[in-house]
Amino acid sequence: MLQPQDTAVTTLGPCTIPSPLRLGRQPEAGVPPFVSDTARVRFRVECDPACPAEPDVFFEKAGPRERLFFDPRRVRAAIVTCGGLCPGLNNVIRSAFLELHYNYGVPEVLGLRYGYAGLNPAVAEPPLRLTPELVDTIHEEGGTVLGTSRGPQPVEVMVDFLASRGIDLLLCVGGDGTLRGARSIAEEVLRRGLKIAVVGVPKTIDNDVMYVERTFGMQTAVDKAREVLDAAHNEAKSAYNGVGLVKVMGRDAGFIAAMATLASQEVNFTLIPEVPLVLDGPRGFLETLRRRLIARHHAVVVVAEGVGRELLAGEPVETDASGNPKPPDIGPFLKNRIVQHMRKYGVPVDVKYFDPSYLIRSVPANSDDAIFCDALARHAVHAAMAGKTNVVVGLWNGVFTLVPIPLAVSGKKHVDPAGPLWKSVLACTGQPPGWT
Amino acid sequence: MLQPQDTAVTTLGPCTIPSPLRLGRQPEAGVPPFVSDTARVRFRVECDPACPAEPDVFFEKAGPRERLFFDPRRVRAAIVTCGGLCPGLNNVIRSAFLELHYNYGVPEVLGLRYGYAGLNPAVAEPPLRLTPELVDTIHEEGGTVLGTSRGPQPVEVMVDFLASRGIDLLLCVGGDGTLRGARSIAEEVLRRGLKIAVVGVPKTIDNDVMYVERTFGMQTAVDKAREVLDAAHNEAKSAYNGVGLVKVMGRDAGFIAAMATLASQEVNFTLIPEVPLVLDGPRGFLETLRRRLIARHHAVVVVAEGVGRELLAGEPVETDASGNPKPPDIGPFLKNRIVQHMRKYGVPVDVKYFDPSYLIRSVPANSDDAIFCDALARHAVHAAMAGKTNVVVGLWNGVFTLVPIPLAVSGKKHVDPAGPLWKSVLACTGQPPGWT
Amino acid sequence: MLQPQDTAVTTLGPCTIPSPLRLGRQPEAGVPPFVSDTARVRFRVECDPACPAEPDVFFEKAGPRERLFFDPRRVRAAIVTCGGLCPGLNNVIRSAFLELHYNYGVPEVLGLRYGYAGLNPAVAEPPLRLTPELVDTIHEEGGTVLGTSRGPQPVEVMVDFLASRGIDLLLCVGGDGTLRGARSIAEEVLRRGLKIAVVGVPKTIDNDVMYVERTFGMQTAVDKAREVLDAAHNEAKSAYNGVGLVKVMGRDAGFIAAMATLASQEVNFTLIPEVPLVLDGPRGFLETLRRRLIARHHAVVVVAEGVGRELLAGEPVETDASGNPKPPDIGPFLKNRIVQHMRKYGVPVDVKYFDPSYLIRSVPANSDDAIFCDALARHAVHAAMAGKTNVVVGLWNGVFTLVPIPLAVSGKKHVDPAGPLWKSVLACTGQPPGWT
Amino acid sequence: MLQPQDTAVTTLGPCTIPSPLRLGRQPEAGVPPFVSDTARVRFRVECDPACPAEPDVFFEKAGPRERLFFDPRRVRAAIVTCGGLCPGLNNVIRSAFLELHYNYGVPEVLGLRYGYAGLNPAVAEPPLRLTPELVDTIHEEGGTVLGTSRGPQPVEVMVDFLASRGIDLLLCVGGDGTLRGARSIAEEVLRRGLKIAVVGVPKTIDNDVMYVERTFGMQTAVDKAREVLDAAHNEAKSAYNGVGLVKVMGRDAGFIAAMATLASQEVNFTLIPEVPLVLDGPRGFLETLRRRLIARHHAVVVVAEGVGRELLAGEPVETDASGNPKPPDIGPFLKNRIVQHMRKYGVPVDVKYFDPSYLIRSVPANSDDAIFCDALARHAVHAAMAGKTNVVVGLWNGVFTLVPIPLAVSGKKHVDPAGPLWKSVLACTGQPPGWT
Repeated sequence: MLQPQDTAVTTLGPCTIPSPLRLGRQPEAGVPPFVSDTARVRFRVECDPACPAEPDVFFEKAGPRERLFFDPRRVRAAIVTCGGLCPGLNNVIRSAFLELHYNYGVPEVLGLRYGYAGLNPAVAEPPLRLTPELVDTIHEEGGTVLGTSRGPQPVEVMVDFLASRGIDLLLCVGGDGTLRGARSIAEEVLRRGLKIAVVGVPKTIDNDVMYVERTFGMQTAVDKAREVLDAAHNEAKSAYNGVGLVKVMGRDAGFIAAMATLASQEVNFTLIPEVPLVLDGPRGFLETLRRRLIARHHAVVVVAEGVGRELLAGEPVETDASGNPKPPDIGPFLKNRIVQHMRKYGVPVDVKYFDPSYLIRSVPANSDDAIFCDALARHAVHAAMAGKTNVVVGLWNGVFTLVPIPLAVSGKKHVDPAGPLWKSVLACTGQPPGWT
Repeated sequence: MLQPQDTAVTTLGPCTIPSPLRLGRQPEAGVPPFVSDTARVRFRVECDPACPAEPDVFFEKAGPRERLFFDPRRVRAAIVTCGGLCPGLNNVIRSAFLELHYNYGVPEVLGLRYGYAGLNPAVAEPPLRLTPELVDTIHEEGGTVLGTSRGPQPVEVMVDFLASRGIDLLLCVGGDGTLRGARSIAEEVLRRGLKIAVVGVPKTIDNDVMYVERTFGMQTAVDKAREVLDAAHNEAKSAYNGVGLVKVMGRDAGFIAAMATLASQEVNFTLIPEVPLVLDGPRGFLETLRRRLIARHHAVVVVAEGVGRELLAGEPVETDASGNPKPPDIGPFLKNRIVQHMRKYGVPVDVKYFDPSYLIRSVPANSDDAIFCDALARHAVHAAMAGKTNVVVGLWNGVFTLVPIPLAVSGKKHVDPAGPLWKSVLACTGQPPGWT
Repeated sequence: MLQPQDTAVTTLGPCTIPSPLRLGRQPEAGVPPFVSDTARVRFRVECDPACPAEPDVFFEKAGPRERLFFDPRRVRAAIVTCGGLCPGLNNVIRSAFLELHYNYGVPEVLGLRYGYAGLNPAVAEPPLRLTPELVDTIHEEGGTVLGTSRGPQPVEVMVDFLASRGIDLLLCVGGDGTLRGARSIAEEVLRRGLKIAVVGVPKTIDNDVMYVERTFGMQTAVDKAREVLDAAHNEAKSAYNGVGLVKVMGRDAGFIAAMATLASQEVNFTLIPEVPLVLDGPRGFLETLRRRLIARHHAVVVVAEGVGRELLAGEPVETDASGNPKPPDIGPFLKNRIVQHMRKYGVPVDVKYFDPSYLIRSVPANSDDAIFCDALARHAVHAAMAGKTNVVVGLWNGVFTLVPIPLAVSGKKHVDPAGPLWKSVLACTGQPPGWT
Repeated sequence: MLQPQDTAVTTLGPCTIPSPLRLGRQPEAGVPPFVSDTARVRFRVECDPACPAEPDVFFEKAGPRERLFFDPRRVRAAIVTCGGLCPGLNNVIRSAFLELHYNYGVPEVLGLRYGYAGLNPAVAEPPLRLTPELVDTIHEEGGTVLGTSRGPQPVEVMVDFLASRGIDLLLCVGGDGTLRGARSIAEEVLRRGLKIAVVGVPKTIDNDVMYVERTFGMQTAVDKAREVLDAAHNEAKSAYNGVGLVKVMGRDAGFIAAMATLASQEVNFTLIPEVPLVLDGPRGFLETLRRRLIARHHAVVVVAEGVGRELLAGEPVETDASGNPKPPDIGPFLKNRIVQHMRKYGVPVDVKYFDPSYLIRSVPANSDDAIFCDALARHAVHAAMAGKTNVVVGLWNGVFTLVPIPLAVSGKKHVDPAGPLWKSVLACTGQPPGWT
């Protein structure tokens, strides 16, 4: 269970430089204020007098500080984007640059190329020097203008790079692997007694970063996945006993599958890694699907890519460059099993399989993610300017927070099979809560 | 200041009927549970040890109850949509019907026609009897299949109608005026000792319902407004000293203007009702705009319709059927003032004025609103089945709540000029925090 | 070469019934006129005095005739949709129904279910009786409300069905296989001396129907394919030596690949079935791609599904229910060959593969296809009411025509490697005209 | 009536420079060929043996010529965009540049700023020198990166500018006014014996350029207008006796109104400048609308901005900078007349008025326009390199042509009230062919 001391944020040292931002002090009416270092966001917002009380835990609230650790006029900042694409990467780059350049007056912001490879001179393309012209319209495009890559680089080499280039603050935009890398850098920096702030911006399309309510790009991915579900519904309805089967991203967490189900309202079966899939038996998935086909003559099934690892266990396991396991493919496996099962029972079936893959991650951010990315990026800058390090910007109960990276990478966030999201999915699809 | 007793929810009587929903009890692992009547959501999620503590206040948590007031097999339910259109109305109608019909097994759900007029036999079109076929694809369309209208009807007549038709629960989808009507009905029902639950679903594109974090349709409106802002930006940049001036909805609250600004990232001046507009003087809007044009040769301005009432004070005030004041039009007024000012100072200017009006409210819900509407509707059904009345379903700190309607209509929510949203707008536009 | 007699249209008999449409006769000013049976559309619109002249050939012009073969008040019409989905199917169904119902006053229009299976009582679901309510909003959805299936049914059975149900006119919406089926029906009808008009509406997302300039749905498919190409471009640019590889529909004809290339403007290599693919050798595709990667570090490749059959010749060939060959999959094959080639030459590469498959065909029609489908459907009705049979509605040089089905199925339309479309692709991609 | 000599194209002189494009000669199989100067496109594609024959007229076919007038290695080219925005302007700029730069190897391409003002040194911003980087992503954005303006500049000044800057070819992208300007420039150039090619690209969102089948941007405008019509339909259906009234562009020609009607399928009354509007009387528009409301309780009306000038005749007429008349506004006028009429007859009505104005013209080009713009731009370059002047690139019967500008500006193209487009609108809306 989360303990109060787990949420303590590391800083590089005392903040003595007045912030150039034109914000108010708390009591001053009508002007948005600076945020105090003592402001906190409550971990637990729900309570029930009928249940035993739990100790209060709080996150540090993010926001612009009145006193800074760095003198903005002498800062050299750098941004790096790592891992798979995610809608909003360019928005984060752009807003971080604009906040540093226009609002803090930082003279130099570098864009490191192709992920952590950009911090390893042995393999790196030279950094881009960001300018207003360069970032002008990038938020209207998917991908990342800095480029990205998977996998780590030697931490000593990366810290040497930062030190030799005189980089004072590093914004690392990425998911679990990226944040682990950022932690290594931050800890090596502290070990050497350097003064480099390392701040993470949580990017994972799967939304699986612990203690972070929402990661950017997921809402856009849900939008795109919904389009695919609607298309699958059209295919399913247009065939006799048509089944639209859609695989979406989600290695360990079924957020995209669950939310796209709710957005589409056309799904009959939502299969997520958090709810074990049982194919056979009278209450298994295949028989339930068969009954649905006989009753309604069409069905839509969405399956997260991480579903059914135990079912696929016979197959050889590959890993990608980051060391993440690449599971054998549940989509074609499920399609085959559906076809075999229906054939066995003499039920005609017409399965249309959709694998949108990268299509839902390489599009521009939608409005909601655009707003979110803008805030995340600016909060990351505020944190770094105040000397916070080894932290990632989070959102909790609707408020922007600072979460120690070691806490954020201590596990993975999941769809709670007893929680409100899954309850909504069950109400919407009418499927059973689990497979037995 | 909000007091603990303000948030107490009224119920029609004790709940004795077991819910037909297949949910678990709290400790049961792996199955989403019922929600207890004692579950609460904390009003205040932020705190600062450096500041004086405030008394705790809580909202009742929404959700399906294990025991119901009504026997679902004998319930006749009704839904009414009132006021201006809002993206998601059909989603709410559809999900409420599906929850009542499939999950609770309610035999009859009526759709009342054209707002509260549908409860007045003197003027009403007969109700629609909702069916799965009728609601099948309505969520893909804007508007409301029930029709809507503005303005109240006599409360006695409406309660007579409900009683004579044997309606047990009434879902009222609408904004401030609608909720006031719902309160009148609920109170008249209680006065007569009837057993009719009246539950509101907060619909206002302006997002201005008190103690409700978010109303449905606003995110979609922001999407559409962003498109208009992007178009305005294209017009502005393509002309020498081009100004794209966009008026968006927002009579009293500037949420759409502020959020569309952040989504678009192309706005230079965001004018909202909460921040008084000063046109003249060296630090007024017109001179600030002039300096911008000279420096950059184009600008985008977004103005909420409720801005500048004091500036327009000379003009005659009309009211619409609901009694809401129809302010004289700030858009053309501002366009004229910009042209006059620039002409006076010999600065050529080319103002392109956009008034998207109804265009941003009559579209289908986007993914995010679709998910939200589905949950709102089902929570409204849960509340009504448990005999809650004179309440509106809210969202607070990310959790669905039940808010007494008298509390919800005790004021209007505004963009806080000292809050995080406005802070983000200022960081993004670079405009001054206020006009002097 | 096309001969004048090839374009002669078959009719069921003399037209004696005055049309109920309120159109003018030719000289009448200001009212759109009926179209005469003698109106023709020139086959060849280009000429060059420097080249030898060719004999003139003409198509019969489509349009409402002043005299009808059928008495509309006594007509029973039927519509059937066959083969794979295509954007616009519901638009065609809807406009055909509306034209029959409102404009001609036909009392009964049946929708046959699930393709030609709907004409075989042994397997058929019963027909739908179409109504204004049923078709009201169907044009906003992809798929077909009638359902579809692949493959033929016995022609005697189908004609028995039509005769026994008293169906006077049959609109067959489909591609090559469907039109062959329609021809069989029409010829069997004539053989039996029946008076049933059989009119085709050309639906093929591949745009490969001969003597028909454009088939509906292709423009929408190009829209969707463009989105995928843009996503692939984002993936490619965001990786070091990134390659976005996209497979699109097009078994025999590369129209979608070519047009999506022009719409996207981000493609470097467009591979179509009409231009033989050579992988190896210094001027083959793989080396050309390698040079591109070394020069620019990213590339986008689009490949039509029918490309490279000779390269895949070793693999076993499957067929679908219609007897169309299902080629082994060029997409993964090409991905593997690219990776192997670059590895061999020590060039790092990161290939992102996209297979949008059904996603580009199950969406609603875009504006352009919506307009086109409306006209196609109404012209099909006009033709059938005038007793035209064994014809398909075409478009030629921008004018709607009637093409004998035997002519339309005498071959397949292709992208001309010496024509203007391919010339545009070459200008846009900069790729060589062919691979050697 | 069009005469053969009207279509003769002017050239600057004999073409002696071999083209660097790698195209084939006509008989060469498999490589797209150059286009001969003698290739022609037939004006009239329809014929009817029952009607009197007309003399044949032909347009010169556009396309790359094997011999050029200019030596590409020594060419300085310039592009100017004039008049109101239109979707696709940036596509034309980009493709023209890419064709000149990559395919012809032209060393310098200038972008003149803000319309013809960019050719008048007294008022001009300096030209942009176009580069691959500058144009890289501009086609994804609406507007024009060169800027635009309305109105002419002195022709002598403009020709002095071209001569003094050593500009060899000028591409003028614009509508009627722009083409008149281009004609003046071309004629003054010839008068002075200069060798500057002036080639137009026809840009008018109204699609009203004579002898040009289609102008770019209109399809995109139809897409956007359709969205507004759908929104208006939602508003209309959601109110009792709701009327959605939409004004769209179209000063003299109703193409957008007519095509958006067909794309939307939700319009009941389409009012265009070509069909005189009669408001009063039993068969006038207002009574017809009243009957529709009584029967169906909602209606959608789309009106082109140029409708009803005679009805508005009492109002003062303004002109814009180009001298185009700015008609008093038919939209609010019509709204008032509808409200008054229904009030007079005691029919309740709720009119929702939409004026999307610039919104439909400042968006990026859709796929179809993107493809079209790419081809138009490259054909304009081909024409100019071959020394063609005082011509505009057209499309006729589906083939790209060269149309002498004096012919193109000899009148305006209109929707033919006896033609197929209007016939489709009447079939779709059910409205009478005219108002009496």
